[in-house]
Amino acid sequence: MTAQEAEPAILETRERLLKTAFQLFHEQGYHATGVATILREAGVNAGSMYHFFSSKDDLLLKVLEFALDYLEPMVMGPAEAATVDPIERVFALLQQYREQLHANQCRMGCPIGNLALEVSDGNAKARELIHRNFQNWADRVERWLQSAAYEFPPGTDLKRLARFVLTVMEGGLMQARAAGHVGPFDDSVAVLREHFAALRAQGAAKAGVRATKKIVRQPKKNQRGRSR
Amino acid sequence: MTAQEAEPAILETRERLLKTAFQLFHEQGYHATGVATILREAGVNAGSMYHFFSSKDDLLLKVLEFALDYLEPMVMGPAEAATVDPIERVFALLQQYREQLHANQCRMGCPIGNLALEVSDGNAKARELIHRNFQNWADRVERWLQSAAYEFPPGTDLKRLARFVLTVMEGGLMQARAAGHVGPFDDSVAVLREHFAALRAQGAAKAGVRATKKIVRQPKKNQRGRSR
Repeated sequence: MTAQEAEPAILETRERLLKTAFQLFHEQGYHATGVATILREAGVNAGSMYHFFSSKDDLLLKVLEFALDYLEPMVMGPAEAATVDPIERVFALLQQYREQLHANQCRMGCPIGNLALEVSDGNAKARELIHRNFQNWADRVERWLQSAAYEFPPGTDLKRLARFVLTVMEGGLMQARAAGHVGPFDDSVAVLREHFAALRAQGAAKAGVRATKKIVRQPKKNQRGRSR
Repeated sequence: MTAQEAEPAILETRERLLKTAFQLFHEQGYHATGVATILREAGVNAGSMYHFFSSKDDLLLKVLEFALDYLEPMVMGPAEAATVDPIERVFALLQQYREQLHANQCRMGCPIGNLALEVSDGNAKARELIHRNFQNWADRVERWLQSAAYEFPPGTDLKRLARFVLTVMEGGLMQARAAGHVGPFDDSVAVLREHFAALRAQGAAKAGVRATKKIVRQPKKNQRGRSR
């Protein structure tokens, strides 16, 4: 193997470890996943793993960093590709989670949400990275909402609304897992849709008032024009 | 010890085991809690425990049944006592979770929500009991909403809205734990309040239309009366 070939192979091993660990933590949780299982499923020996990661705890942190980069191509990109309507992107994103939930027979849920409840309390660095993953998700949703800001009543807190979308996704997913069917997730998304509809109706009503005021003001301008 | 004295003592041991296990599962999760810790903290020997519970798995199921009974005196009762306004009871309930979150430095979260993510996938009986705990919670919230049904637009799905309150509580709690502060919980509750306000405004507008129709209809009756 030449030096040029070695580097991609090393990077590939590291990425295989990260992907395998991410998948196993998602399927069965962090504590229930043994290093031996990660090594066997990744086809990597212990020496290689400890070359990249000093411990299972360190591997967890790197998995959470990996998840930050994973979000764009695997989660947000596809929702953006699904529709050009920025508000419909929110619901396309939720639909992706629904499809995954359905494909997994309502098991597994959200990989970051699971870790939030499992490891946040005892691991400040992991907690911080989980928070960054949530922020990352909500920031992207907020950008979609910002590009449709004219749809909402003036002064609507779109950062808070974006975070609320995440709240509904995680809370709905949790109840669907407990129920063993997608019903609670669908119900939660349906109420979120109603909330968006109410905001848009309020926004349209206020825009109507602004448009009326503009029409009322315009003749005055003309009158002033004529009086000159 | 007489037979009359023995029975309460036995029941007390069983309840102490349930309470201790519930607390430990809440603090550190089901898998991370060893039977030895439960026994030590409850001050009970292994023989006594296996007299009541065939295994740690069986203890989990009994803890989840215990939680069904625990909900009324420890969670829903205090929210009901806080205010007579049925809709404000919803927010008093959420406020209780906020206070607990704050008291625990944003750790621990909801004992049932944690177990939903930790044990649902691999344990059908536990999953079913977690679902019943969620249903129990949402059913009580639904009863509050039903008693204020006149506040909402006709046809509002109050079962779904009650479940949505649970969605917001769990999703907000999860993000607050990851953030390490109550901000995301408060933000989620604030948007839920806005949603309730929008529903009540819609309800009031429709009630206004109905009242107007009634007034319009009444003179007709009088005219008919007069024409006879």
